[in-house]
Amino acid sequence: MTLLLSNEDVEKVLTMEVCLEALETLYREVGEERAVATPRMDVHLPTPRSEGTEVPMAHYLKTMSGGTPSFGVAALRLTSDIVAWKKVGDLIRREKIPALPGNRWLGLVLLFSSANGELLAIMNDGVLQRMRVGGTNGLGIKYLARRDCRSAGLFGSGWQAGSQLMALCAVRSVTTIKVYSPTREHRQAFAQEMSGKLRVKVIPVDSPEEAARNVDLIVTATNSRQPFLKGLWLKPGMHLSCMQRDEAEDDAYGKSDVLVIHTHAMEHNFVSRDLVERHGRDGFEVRDHPIPRRIDWSRLPTLGDLAAGRIQGRTSDEQITCFVNNIGLGAQFAAVGARVYERARAQGLGRELPIDWFVESVHP
Amino acid sequence: MTLLLSNEDVEKVLTMEVCLEALETLYREVGEERAVATPRMDVHLPTPRSEGTEVPMAHYLKTMSGGTPSFGVAALRLTSDIVAWKKVGDLIRREKIPALPGNRWLGLVLLFSSANGELLAIMNDGVLQRMRVGGTNGLGIKYLARRDCRSAGLFGSGWQAGSQLMALCAVRSVTTIKVYSPTREHRQAFAQEMSGKLRVKVIPVDSPEEAARNVDLIVTATNSRQPFLKGLWLKPGMHLSCMQRDEAEDDAYGKSDVLVIHTHAMEHNFVSRDLVERHGRDGFEVRDHPIPRRIDWSRLPTLGDLAAGRIQGRTSDEQITCFVNNIGLGAQFAAVGARVYERARAQGLGRELPIDWFVESVHP
Repeated sequence: MTLLLSNEDVEKVLTMEVCLEALETLYREVGEERAVATPRMDVHLPTPRSEGTEVPMAHYLKTMSGGTPSFGVAALRLTSDIVAWKKVGDLIRREKIPALPGNRWLGLVLLFSSANGELLAIMNDGVLQRMRVGGTNGLGIKYLARRDCRSAGLFGSGWQAGSQLMALCAVRSVTTIKVYSPTREHRQAFAQEMSGKLRVKVIPVDSPEEAARNVDLIVTATNSRQPFLKGLWLKPGMHLSCMQRDEAEDDAYGKSDVLVIHTHAMEHNFVSRDLVERHGRDGFEVRDHPIPRRIDWSRLPTLGDLAAGRIQGRTSDEQITCFVNNIGLGAQFAAVGARVYERARAQGLGRELPIDWFVESVHP
Repeated sequence: MTLLLSNEDVEKVLTMEVCLEALETLYREVGEERAVATPRMDVHLPTPRSEGTEVPMAHYLKTMSGGTPSFGVAALRLTSDIVAWKKVGDLIRREKIPALPGNRWLGLVLLFSSANGELLAIMNDGVLQRMRVGGTNGLGIKYLARRDCRSAGLFGSGWQAGSQLMALCAVRSVTTIKVYSPTREHRQAFAQEMSGKLRVKVIPVDSPEEAARNVDLIVTATNSRQPFLKGLWLKPGMHLSCMQRDEAEDDAYGKSDVLVIHTHAMEHNFVSRDLVERHGRDGFEVRDHPIPRRIDWSRLPTLGDLAAGRIQGRTSDEQITCFVNNIGLGAQFAAVGARVYERARAQGLGRELPIDWFVESVHP
């Protein structure tokens, strides 16, 4: 039987502790090249939804796969979205439009058994996605930040910011967190909610500078496509945890004594000429590519190197350390998905689908 | 609603004519770079199934995606198989083991709407897979073979050989086909079955040389990982249609005046170190890579170039032409899958699944 799991099911069984344990096992395997992760494959096609508007839009099918011998599974994660690149002030922000009936999105994780190839589960990807991002940055903190960290500055107050804090609090005994995001109401509501949930003091602050001042850690959790985190904010002994690669300026990376990225796997972006002709190559293709950097990502050590002990992390309390969650991996969904599956099965969650639906009697 | 379609459903609506029409539209788009196709991503992991045997085995998760603006869809095709590399005489043959309950395999096509991202259908991939391979080689014949072809030699008598003949007979008025495959009973049974189905004379022959003698076309449909088709078999005016790139010797390709491949997209193979350590790098990684060639595939024109009129095909009756279906594309499943979906909907086939199962209220 194939188990169909909703986000609500996943949420019931996936704690940050479970997520961190799964990811730590995974990254040891990644460092040893025993786990396997493919580059992300992005397909951008024209969408009828863009008719009558000048806003660049596309149908965006994203896939990533991977597997882990320790968990005995492989996973495929996919999203099928209508995306729009909207101008917000001077910035261009990519929005995934909830274009499905009931304002829904579509993101799935398919989990396969390495014992017989079976489709073990189909899961909504939202909760898994959020937890594995937070957990991955949490491991970066665990391996690189000072053990006596007590305070943090957080950029962003969205859904991802919440799991970043959950992971931070799971690996370090932080007592005070300052949060900055552009909209006052958002950061206030976030601070109140997370203070209650995590039993730490979360304080909304009015400027980016204030969030970064006198803290042991800086954590970013934004969807900015433009660097905002400045090198001069980094002081000796700090750890910088970036949720994505576009958030920090070159100077911040340059100032880091130890700079570790998530993975060398890259995305490959395939764009229909229909889109390029309508919106220009600069207007379209560049939008989903990393901004140009003085830094050569390909030479940097990875979280797998750290977890497998192939490189040293922090060697003194004075060093500035930085972890950049530069891109996701399908193997994350395999490891965390395996734990979700086991626990959901044990608790009798989800809906059983007949295995017959997904198998065939002819050689594929 | 998401439509669940079995191979039986697909078979009811997918004729070779429908398949060829869809593929021809697709390849025009591919040539114009309007359709999008990603490289295939292969994941090879250790499988508990290999315990107690020396035969190299793996859990093999394969994914490919792509989309087509003309059909307004994107597709993802995946297979999750237990594969074994078995020695058969001097040859190594890769077998997909039907490891699922009831001796089943797992291969699926997921079809997505570019209008709103919706998961339109989940289909078994077997029949689609067979038809799109046959149809693609059929287009190669349509564009490259002499118009007055009457006879063909066929190598292989398996399931794929059947669709190769269906495609051939759809684009050329062939009257006689000689078929060779190593097992006498197989080629005899195949000849009898296809003679009836296609109303052409299909004659089993006892040697490869005999199959290739005095024919206008040679069609291969084998899973050989070792070249067997010799250049000296090719005579002026002939067309050679290869179902995969390993079948013909370098001399055969070298002798072709017009040599066209399916696509420049390549597969990327990711292999767990567990497998490499157990079976050796040569023993494992190389097994799923193309054999070394004197020919530089990357410089050859493609079916998209032909369909979009960017290159000339055959320019005289004396030329030897050759088409090599070097690797599959996810976009094939988008185009052919779209036709299957439309026709299945129109006929009320398949099983409706609630759309709620596959959507989510959180931003993925």
